[in-house]
Amino acid sequence: MTALPRLLSRIGSPDPTAGLEAQRRLDDLTKPPGSLGRLEELARRLAEITGACPPEIGHPVIFTLAADHGVVAEGVSAYPQVVTAQMMENFLRGGAAVNVLARHVSARVVVADLGVASSLMEQPGLVVRRIAAGTRNFTQGPAMTGQEALRAVEAGIGLVEAEAAMGLDLIGTGEMGIGNTTAASAIVAALTGAPVEAVTGSGTGVDEAGRLRKVRAIRLALEVNRPDPADGLDVLAKVGGFEIAGLAGVILAGAAARIPVLLDGFIAGAAALAAVRIKPESRHVLVAAHRSPEPGHRHVLEALGLEPYLDLGLRLGEGTGAALCIGLARAAVGILTEMATFKSAGVSSRGPVVRAETCDEPEAREHGEASGEMV
Amino acid sequence: MTALPRLLSRIGSPDPTAGLEAQRRLDDLTKPPGSLGRLEELARRLAEITGACPPEIGHPVIFTLAADHGVVAEGVSAYPQVVTAQMMENFLRGGAAVNVLARHVSARVVVADLGVASSLMEQPGLVVRRIAAGTRNFTQGPAMTGQEALRAVEAGIGLVEAEAAMGLDLIGTGEMGIGNTTAASAIVAALTGAPVEAVTGSGTGVDEAGRLRKVRAIRLALEVNRPDPADGLDVLAKVGGFEIAGLAGVILAGAAARIPVLLDGFIAGAAALAAVRIKPESRHVLVAAHRSPEPGHRHVLEALGLEPYLDLGLRLGEGTGAALCIGLARAAVGILTEMATFKSAGVSSRGPVVRAETCDEPEAREHGEASGEMV
Repeated sequence: MTALPRLLSRIGSPDPTAGLEAQRRLDDLTKPPGSLGRLEELARRLAEITGACPPEIGHPVIFTLAADHGVVAEGVSAYPQVVTAQMMENFLRGGAAVNVLARHVSARVVVADLGVASSLMEQPGLVVRRIAAGTRNFTQGPAMTGQEALRAVEAGIGLVEAEAAMGLDLIGTGEMGIGNTTAASAIVAALTGAPVEAVTGSGTGVDEAGRLRKVRAIRLALEVNRPDPADGLDVLAKVGGFEIAGLAGVILAGAAARIPVLLDGFIAGAAALAAVRIKPESRHVLVAAHRSPEPGHRHVLEALGLEPYLDLGLRLGEGTGAALCIGLARAAVGILTEMATFKSAGVSSRGPVVRAETCDEPEAREHGEASGEMV
Repeated sequence: MTALPRLLSRIGSPDPTAGLEAQRRLDDLTKPPGSLGRLEELARRLAEITGACPPEIGHPVIFTLAADHGVVAEGVSAYPQVVTAQMMENFLRGGAAVNVLARHVSARVVVADLGVASSLMEQPGLVVRRIAAGTRNFTQGPAMTGQEALRAVEAGIGLVEAEAAMGLDLIGTGEMGIGNTTAASAIVAALTGAPVEAVTGSGTGVDEAGRLRKVRAIRLALEVNRPDPADGLDVLAKVGGFEIAGLAGVILAGAAARIPVLLDGFIAGAAALAAVRIKPESRHVLVAAHRSPEPGHRHVLEALGLEPYLDLGLRLGEGTGAALCIGLARAAVGILTEMATFKSAGVSSRGPVVRAETCDEPEAREHGEASGEMV
């Protein structure tokens, strides 16, 4: 028995208790009930997922997994394949967008090579979990073997378990891989049954001819490989990528440890669909950080039943949307833990709506000498 | 001549140079062009507004202005009027939502009394700029005199000028005033010509009967006072509030000093409409932080030509949406200043889309020994 079945057996349903406790606390705070909108919802969800009220965010990590894709041979990307490795170097030097945005929210970025075509020099910060030097071109056969897919998923699990031992309490997903929107679209088409045309966009910026090459490659891949939509691991193996399978592992490990997972955009969404197909209960730890302009993302969000917190037209990946959402998550937890209650602040809560001429302002004066003690 | 005409004469049109420089820099960074979406747009706008590339955010301040409203006598709020003063105490003790969210983005909150009904004890942090003990009930005559409106606007200008002397470089607007969504709806109806019914919502949470009382009060106020839609100051005087007029002053002072103004929700939007009616060029410093569920906010945003950055269902005011947007603004500036360029990181920029078999990866190896120098 590999690590995966053991891990899956630990993934259960959420306990609503902490979520209800969060809701009660939110309703006691000095603001009209619900007036912080989705920030309150996020606070409640973080409590529900972790089973703790208040939840803590002391050690957030963005897992940026990278790999290459044989399908680039079909001309599906605007960038040469070598950019995957070059961007890895950029991540390791701290100069990429995800590094900047992670620093701004005091999050770490774990950079892992799951199968970049040209292997990188050993260097500080680089986590090497290479399955192979890129996937095979899945228009001609499976991207990887079932065994390789399992190893990639388990590699992702291992990354989370290593960080969990150091106190990891919030996961952001990130990825880099020239050609990986093509793999993600193939996964989403296979798992949701949506038409290939509807889930295939311009990725990092191919023109319409490039997009049509993506559509053709994916259609061919689905015909040639016939992935089983009931089997998430089979779909990952046949039309996925090492970094996407790795992210599915990250998500499953998060679910097993009850650590919230902030999903970055479209590619992370494809990984989440596969994770949820492998273990439906893993869905309860997922938070959609942002809405991607990739047309397939809508199908992902519908299938997962998630509504993103940000809609800023981000289409970079790397974990950039997840990083921005860590800021919101910290704000949501701050609301729960740092705000005064009506009672502690001596603020009158709402009464019946009456004309002020006849309003005797119940309680208003009673708390006039309140201590100002914060929650 | 009062301070206002002198200030207005300093408000000019933006210089596009810094915005273009920001765009050039954004296009050099290691990411597909435009792939950070509205974060790039925000970086460019901050450069345009300030005339500096990169813009700096070293001293952001949220101006939370409070005052009371005579129109509460019409039963337009779910809370008793005393809550305005109680919430001021809460702001001063740091226990309100805006305090929490401001701390999370290292912003200060300036708490100013523009005319709270029950005056507060003198205390550290409280800025007293009282025009009167609340406005008059504007269903029976003007909320304030023209002279009072001018003094409130100038009080807002004074707050910004005092902070500008200490390095203020980003303004967030905030407010507190039981009954002030009714005043804001009246201002928006007067200035945009939109039907009262269409711009009047449930505020902090009145029921439908309460909302209809708001609609009736506003209709009556517009009939009784006949504010001149061409005269922003007249509208503020007749159906506004001291804190809303003060915020119009904050906005005009920001425009004169080329300091970006992050507008909080609906009430700040009403203040901005008035400011822009007083001096149309002030529009160029406005950034809409978030989209409010108040139905009138759509009319405000359309009239100002602004698209909010956040849409989280916030309907609290205080400056909470502005505070969250300060986090995005810092992220946008971080992208401009901290990311590596294609050249510094040795990353290949996009070439023509070619099938990889024939792609010779131009430049990919040339920069293999790049210095890693950051921009």
